[in-house]
Amino acid sequence: MDDDDRMLRWEHRTELPLALASLLFLASYAVHVLGQGLSDFWHALCLAVTGATWALFIADYLVRWRISGQRLSFVHRHLLDTMVVLLPLLRPLRVVKTYDAVQRRRGQPRLPLPLRVMAYASLSSLLLGFSGALAVLQQERGAPDATIKTFGDSVWWAAATLSTVGYGDVAPVTPLGRTIAVFMMACGLALLGAVTGSFSSWLLQVFARPEETEGPRSGDRSGGP
Amino acid sequence: MDDDDRMLRWEHRTELPLALASLLFLASYAVHVLGQGLSDFWHALCLAVTGATWALFIADYLVRWRISGQRLSFVHRHLLDTMVVLLPLLRPLRVVKTYDAVQRRRGQPRLPLPLRVMAYASLSSLLLGFSGALAVLQQERGAPDATIKTFGDSVWWAAATLSTVGYGDVAPVTPLGRTIAVFMMACGLALLGAVTGSFSSWLLQVFARPEETEGPRSGDRSGGP
Amino acid sequence: MDDDDRMLRWEHRTELPLALASLLFLASYAVHVLGQGLSDFWHALCLAVTGATWALFIADYLVRWRISGQRLSFVHRHLLDTMVVLLPLLRPLRVVKTYDAVQRRRGQPRLPLPLRVMAYASLSSLLLGFSGALAVLQQERGAPDATIKTFGDSVWWAAATLSTVGYGDVAPVTPLGRTIAVFMMACGLALLGAVTGSFSSWLLQVFARPEETEGPRSGDRSGGP
Amino acid sequence: MDDDDRMLRWEHRTELPLALASLLFLASYAVHVLGQGLSDFWHALCLAVTGATWALFIADYLVRWRISGQRLSFVHRHLLDTMVVLLPLLRPLRVVKTYDAVQRRRGQPRLPLPLRVMAYASLSSLLLGFSGALAVLQQERGAPDATIKTFGDSVWWAAATLSTVGYGDVAPVTPLGRTIAVFMMACGLALLGAVTGSFSSWLLQVFARPEETEGPRSGDRSGGP
Repeated sequence: MDDDDRMLRWEHRTELPLALASLLFLASYAVHVLGQGLSDFWHALCLAVTGATWALFIADYLVRWRISGQRLSFVHRHLLDTMVVLLPLLRPLRVVKTYDAVQRRRGQPRLPLPLRVMAYASLSSLLLGFSGALAVLQQERGAPDATIKTFGDSVWWAAATLSTVGYGDVAPVTPLGRTIAVFMMACGLALLGAVTGSFSSWLLQVFARPEETEGPRSGDRSGGP
Repeated sequence: MDDDDRMLRWEHRTELPLALASLLFLASYAVHVLGQGLSDFWHALCLAVTGATWALFIADYLVRWRISGQRLSFVHRHLLDTMVVLLPLLRPLRVVKTYDAVQRRRGQPRLPLPLRVMAYASLSSLLLGFSGALAVLQQERGAPDATIKTFGDSVWWAAATLSTVGYGDVAPVTPLGRTIAVFMMACGLALLGAVTGSFSSWLLQVFARPEETEGPRSGDRSGGP
Repeated sequence: MDDDDRMLRWEHRTELPLALASLLFLASYAVHVLGQGLSDFWHALCLAVTGATWALFIADYLVRWRISGQRLSFVHRHLLDTMVVLLPLLRPLRVVKTYDAVQRRRGQPRLPLPLRVMAYASLSSLLLGFSGALAVLQQERGAPDATIKTFGDSVWWAAATLSTVGYGDVAPVTPLGRTIAVFMMACGLALLGAVTGSFSSWLLQVFARPEETEGPRSGDRSGGP
Repeated sequence: MDDDDRMLRWEHRTELPLALASLLFLASYAVHVLGQGLSDFWHALCLAVTGATWALFIADYLVRWRISGQRLSFVHRHLLDTMVVLLPLLRPLRVVKTYDAVQRRRGQPRLPLPLRVMAYASLSSLLLGFSGALAVLQQERGAPDATIKTFGDSVWWAAATLSTVGYGDVAPVTPLGRTIAVFMMACGLALLGAVTGSFSSWLLQVFARPEETEGPRSGDRSGGP
């Protein structure tokens, strides 16, 4: 219980700074990739900010590991956090969790479960698509026979991949670009599963009790004097 | 209760006119996009009708917001209506709701839940595909290296996109055309989720009680003297 | 009850002949499309057989409609049958139902529900893919810039479409070929939903009770003296 | 009961050797396909090892069939094993089962159901993709107008196929290569169903009881003095 209390206090204190750091990480990486016309000073600054925020995430991870008192089980019990340390571009995903926690504290009514899942999946798709488009663009831009040359191409490709549509008019050609693409396909599948599953259960909830959600109208009519 | 009554009365009165207006909106937009050989007068008329019906949707939305007595929560509680105001091409989707309400009033037996969901998803796909094909065609037609040149190409592309097949033999190349395409991909995913989920639950319902739906035949046989 | 009895007797008598007729229909259509080197006599024969079996399906449909004593509700209560009359290439799908009925009569243990659904979906995919490949090949073969030229191309395209993979290396270019393709996409989505849903529920059934299906081994160990 | 005991003893003894043999099979096949610069001696050795391990799987299958005392029902009750005998590249999939059994014996807590399904589906995808990429590469490498020329192309194609993205920038052109591809599409669909279904049920489990998994924080707050 003591560990839990310390963990809660730690998370409570670091929540907001880390959320800001994650947005800073994404912004500095985006400026580094997209700002080709900028001077070397700005690129060095962006890389420094990117590195510093990454170090921050690792430090937070280690502190929470120590507080938890767990051993290796911490790694797979906090799988999202572990992936964040390896791929800090995913860090902004925790913002959703933060927002959820803030809403709960204020005692505001939360969205129904499937809508929350869909919101989470949508936000994840947006972040993943944006991060993936940046990373692939950085790899592909210099390749001689690349079809992904601008950020617009890259975003278009990311959308076609995450939705598993896959036109193939633009596609990565470098080994590293393709590796990132395979990772995005796997995430696209998982997101598809999340959207499909939550949509399915939402539909069942909404339609399964027609008396409560839709019925009052017809109920009043048939039951009225 | 008073608000609810007024809302019901308002919806009851505006239901049919707005359904007709939504079809008028779609028709005038279609004529504007597809009728390239028409004179300027007809194009101006179509745009006028399109604008007028759009204004009608906004007016209806504002009136219902005021009647509801809700504040900002109205926006996300009536998410479909909010999206309709921004993207009136989606307005005809409410026709499904209207049809459902009319059926219920007449006391006719409604289709089983998953079949209704599938009907809804199919009709949504048709409307979304038709509207999207029109909108993309309008953007792509003039681009120099466009592959979508006729309405046939556009519909073919829309079908391949909504089903997430994505051949890529025709695909939008302009930024605005691609933006519309990304929106359609997102909707395609949601529709896929709806179809998958409803099909899944329908199968479970049908097969889970073989005695009632399939059994009488074998039941009579085994129970016969 | 009288109507039901007559319906059962009718179905019992026509089951086997109609199943054979549906295979005959498919075979004669396939020979007509694939046997380009055959003489005109054979093509005329094939078309005659195709037409005769189609007429048979329509006759059976009308007889069962009359026996049922239902009015228009018969059309959507027997949706698969109605579609068969319009698209007799789907007729062989009823073979699955026939097989199921035969198995039940013999009192043989039926497969668990989700496996049956998956078998049904797989067989449907095979039949739909085969029929669709034939129909598209017939439309595309003569087009000047067609990419689908042989039956192999056509089957390859059908597989890529039904699985929603959609490479796009071969794709229909004629309006009628594309119309058939859109119909196959819609069916591909429905099959995907069936496979996904049944797989999902099968997994839940299998894994949800680990004591019964997997447990005996560990159960003996922990419970042994 | 005697048969079951003997079966358990047999499976207990052969579990580890067969798991090693399956990895040996995959390794020797991979060396044969990828090691084009190796001398004939090594290729002959690889083929010999591949053949020997395949024979081992068939022998194990026959022994277990005989022990089971079942007749033809053994074939479809042990469907995965039957497929392994025909397509030994799938054999390593049983490694997951072995790992699961070992974990259970040690009395270690197993992963929650949907996570186990997702782990199983992920591992299956990896093995299937690797095996399929090898098999397709072997068929395509020599074709004159092939787009799959290196192992990198082949893996890239396999990933795009299993995720049903299907860019189409590289695709098999030989009949045998396309046959393998169709088989992989079918498996991709099944895996998609497994991932979607397990993700869906996992989400429902996690979110359905917010008091247990997420609630302590807010529960303490509202219940505190």
